[in-house]
Amino acid sequence: MTDDAPRRWGRRQLLQTGAVALGGAGAGWSAAAVALPAEHSDAPGAADDGATPYAASPGTSTVAFHGPHQAGIATPAQAHLSLLGLDLLPEVRAEGLGRLLTLISDDAARLARGLPALADTEPELATTPARLTATFGLGPRVMSDLLGSTVAVRALPAFRTDRLDLAWGQTDLAVQLCADDPMAVAHARRMILKDVSGFARVRWIQDGYRHAHGAVPDGTTMRNLMGQVDGTVNLAEAMPDFADLVWSDETGFEGGTFMVVRRIRARMESWDRVDRVGREAAVGRRLADGAPLTGTSEHEEPDFEAVDDLGFPVIDPASHIARARSADPRERFLRRAYNYTVPDPSRPSGEDSGLVFIAFAADVDRQFVPVQRRLAELDRLNEWVTTIGSAVYAVPPGAAEGEYVAERLLAV
Amino acid sequence: MTDDAPRRWGRRQLLQTGAVALGGAGAGWSAAAVALPAEHSDAPGAADDGATPYAASPGTSTVAFHGPHQAGIATPAQAHLSLLGLDLLPEVRAEGLGRLLTLISDDAARLARGLPALADTEPELATTPARLTATFGLGPRVMSDLLGSTVAVRALPAFRTDRLDLAWGQTDLAVQLCADDPMAVAHARRMILKDVSGFARVRWIQDGYRHAHGAVPDGTTMRNLMGQVDGTVNLAEAMPDFADLVWSDETGFEGGTFMVVRRIRARMESWDRVDRVGREAAVGRRLADGAPLTGTSEHEEPDFEAVDDLGFPVIDPASHIARARSADPRERFLRRAYNYTVPDPSRPSGEDSGLVFIAFAADVDRQFVPVQRRLAELDRLNEWVTTIGSAVYAVPPGAAEGEYVAERLLAV
Ligand code: HEM
Ligand code: HEM
Repeated sequence: MTDDAPRRWGRRQLLQTGAVALGGAGAGWSAAAVALPAEHSDAPGAADDGATPYAASPGTSTVAFHGPHQAGIATPAQAHLSLLGLDLLPEVRAEGLGRLLTLISDDAARLARGLPALADTEPELATTPARLTATFGLGPRVMSDLLGSTVAVRALPAFRTDRLDLAWGQTDLAVQLCADDPMAVAHARRMILKDVSGFARVRWIQDGYRHAHGAVPDGTTMRNLMGQVDGTVNLAEAMPDFADLVWSDETGFEGGTFMVVRRIRARMESWDRVDRVGREAAVGRRLADGAPLTGTSEHEEPDFEAVDDLGFPVIDPASHIARARSADPRERFLRRAYNYTVPDPSRPSGEDSGLVFIAFAADVDRQFVPVQRRLAELDRLNEWVTTIGSAVYAVPPGAAEGEYVAERLLAV
Repeated sequence: MTDDAPRRWGRRQLLQTGAVALGGAGAGWSAAAVALPAEHSDAPGAADDGATPYAASPGTSTVAFHGPHQAGIATPAQAHLSLLGLDLLPEVRAEGLGRLLTLISDDAARLARGLPALADTEPELATTPARLTATFGLGPRVMSDLLGSTVAVRALPAFRTDRLDLAWGQTDLAVQLCADDPMAVAHARRMILKDVSGFARVRWIQDGYRHAHGAVPDGTTMRNLMGQVDGTVNLAEAMPDFADLVWSDETGFEGGTFMVVRRIRARMESWDRVDRVGREAAVGRRLADGAPLTGTSEHEEPDFEAVDDLGFPVIDPASHIARARSADPRERFLRRAYNYTVPDPSRPSGEDSGLVFIAFAADVDRQFVPVQRRLAELDRLNEWVTTIGSAVYAVPPGAAEGEYVAERLLAV
C-alpha cells in the first residue's frame, strides 16, 4: 500500500462501490435462474461473515475468512490454486511481519466477502469471490528466529528420491489462494502481492488447477494429469478424527495446523509407455473409477491380503496405495493437491507438469514424515514422479473478526 | 503417436472406454440435478456431431469440430485458453504437414465430442470437453514456401510502440485450445503436443483466462486485469456483417479467416498510480459498467462530439475507444482476447500480466492494420501497455466430417 493510496481510495467510497457492484452481480445472476442443490442454495452474494459455500451463483459464493481455523484447509478444494512463496526482506523483524499480516488479513477478509480490498485499484474485480480463500503459513525461520515461538516447525528430513531445486524451496511465508474463478485468484494475488512488496519478495508462485466448478458433480474425487482418481482415501471435515489429525492443540496455537508443500514432477514421457494394466498395478487402483484392484467401487476398502490364482497379491505390496497406507491411524493427513502445468519448450513434451502436493497435519513429523519416508523407500510410482520442491509452514489458527492471522503468536 | 500405440490402445477398446466413461459422467451429473436456462438444456453428453453448447452439465457441453468454419472463432469465448506456437522441424515438407494435420484434426474432433483421442493415454480425462475447441492456424512461411498458396498471409508491419521479443514471435503453426474446464484444455494440449512432437517443436505456449463459466451470467462482457470491461464493441455471429468481416471468400479458402496474435504486457505498477478518473479518461468508458463517458449503460453509443461545460470533449480524442474506432465500417474485426499472468519474481509486482490479444479478420491488412497503426500513433493506453509478441496466421476453413483441416489447401 503506497502512502497516498488511502487518500485516493477512501474506505467509504470503496465499500460503496463494492456493495453496488455486488448487488448488480447478484441481480444479474438471479435473472439467469440457475438452480442448485437445495442444501447449497443460500442467498446470493450475502456479504456478511457467514459463508455461503454455494450461493445461487458460484461466482458470488463465499467462504468465511474469520473463524477458529483458517479457510482453505477444510474447505472443499476450489478449482484454482495460486500458492505464493515469499521471503521477508532482511530488515523486516517481528513488528514488520505484524504490519504485513495485518494488511493481508484485511485484504483476505474483504476479498473473501466479495468486497474490494482497502485501496483496491480494481474494485470491480472483487465482486466474484467464487469461494475465495487465503491461507497464511509461516516458515521455520520466521517461527523460531523472528517470533521465538515454542511451536516447532521443522524442515522435512531429506528423502532419497528427492531432487530438490531451491527455486521451489522453503520460504519465510506462504500464501495459498484458492477460488473457483481464475479472475478471483488473479485479483486477490495482485492485491496481496502489492501489500507484500514493501516487506517481502516473491521467490516462487505455484499455480494449480482441478476440474472447473460445475464441470463434474460436487464431491467428485479429482483426477490428476496421470489420469488417476486422486484423493479417494483422504480426511474430510465430517470424520470424527479430522480435528485431532488436522488441528493443533499446542498452547497458543490451538486450531492451527502445518502445511507441507511438495512440488512433484510427473515424467509424462515415460508414463506414456505404460499400459493400463501397468498403470493400475503401480497405484493399486483402477483408472476407470478409482476402485481398488480387489473391488468394484471407488470407496470400497482395498483387500491387501487378496491373492490371484497363482498366489500373487492382487494389490502389489509395492503399489502406491499399499505403501502410502499405514497400520497406525495417526499416520494420516489431509491431502489438498492441485495439478500444475508450466510451458517448457525445452522438454520433448513441451510442458512440465505434475502435482502441487499440499498436505495439512497437526504433527508433520508424526503423521506425514513416516509415510513420505516409506514412499521414498519403495513405491512403484517413483519410477515416474520426482519431488523437485519442498517446504513446510506453520499455519496459525484463524483470526477472529478484528484480528489478524498470527496476532496471538506475535503478541507473545 | 508412437508406432506401437495403436496395438496397445485398439480403436474399438478406446471408443468403448470413452462411451462408458461418458455415460458415467452424464448419469452422475444428472443425479446432482442442476437446472440450467431452458434454451441450453440439451441432452447431456450427446456424443454426436451436433454441438450441445450448454448441456445439462457445463462439463459435457460440446462445440462441433466439423463444419464450414473452424470452431473457436465465432464460439462465445470459453474460460480458458492455451495457445500453442509451433515450428515445423526443418525436414517436414507439405506431405509431413498433411500427416500432422490429419492426426491433430482427428484428436480435436474426438476430444471436442468428449471422446478420447486415438491412442489416448488418459481416456477418462476426455469426458469433460466443456465446450472444447481447437483452432489451427498456418504461418506465412508455411502458406507461401511450403504450400505455395496464393492465399496471402503477410507478417504485420512494424508498429512504433512494439517492443517485440522473438520468444513470442511468429511460428509456423498455431493451435488455439479453449474450454471452460482447465482439465479439458490440459488434456487436449497433451494429446496434441504428443502428436505434434514428431513434426514440430514448441516455441511458446500462451495460456489465458477469463471468468470461470458460471461465475458471471452468460453473455457478460469480460473484464481485463486492468479492471476494464473489455469487449463491448465487438463483432458477434448474429450481426449481419459478421460473415463478411470474418470469413474469407478467397477461392479455395472460403470460410477461412486470419488470426492476429498480439501479446500485450500491462505495466500494472504504473497503472496503479492512476486514479479512476484518469483510468476512465484513458479508455473513454466508465470502470463500473463499461458505459461510454457520455452515457449511462454499456451498450449505448458513445457521443464523440459531446463537450463539457468548458468546451472540452467528454471523450478524449486520444482515448483508446476514440482511436480504435474507425469511420470506415470495414476496419472492424472480431476480438477474442484472454488475460494472462505468468509468475515473474524479477518484477516488483511478482508477476507479468496483460492480454493475449487475439483478433480474427477476413483481411488483416485492410481491417486490422489501419486500427493498430492508429493506436500505435496515439492512444492514451499506450502509456501502460506494450506489445511484446506478434504473429499472424491463416486459419483454414473448417473440415467436413472425414476431412482434416487444410486438406483442400494441401491438395492443390
Ligand atoms: C505425483 C505424486 C503422486 C500421485 C500421482 C499420487 C496419486 C495417488 C493416487 C492415484 C492415490 C489413490 C487414490 C486415493 O486414495 O487418493 C493415492 C493415494 C494416496 N497417496 Fe498419493 N500420489 C502422489 C504422491 C503422494 C505423496 C507425496 C504422498 C505422501 C507423502 C501421498 C500419499 C497418499 C496417501 C496417504 C494415499 C491414500 C492411501 C490409502 O490409505 O489408501 N501421495 N495417491
Ligand atoms: C492491453 C491492451 C488493450 C486493452 C487493455 C484494451 C482495452 C479496451 C477496452 C477497455 C475497450 C472498451 C470496451 C470495448 O468496446 O471493448 C476497448 C475497445 C476496443 N479496442 Fe482495445 N484494448 C487493448 C488493445 C487493443 C488492440 C491492440 C486493438 C487493435 C489493434 C484494440 C482494438 C479495440 C477496438 C476496435 C475497440 C472498440 C472500439 C469502439 O468502440 O469502436 N484494442 N479496448
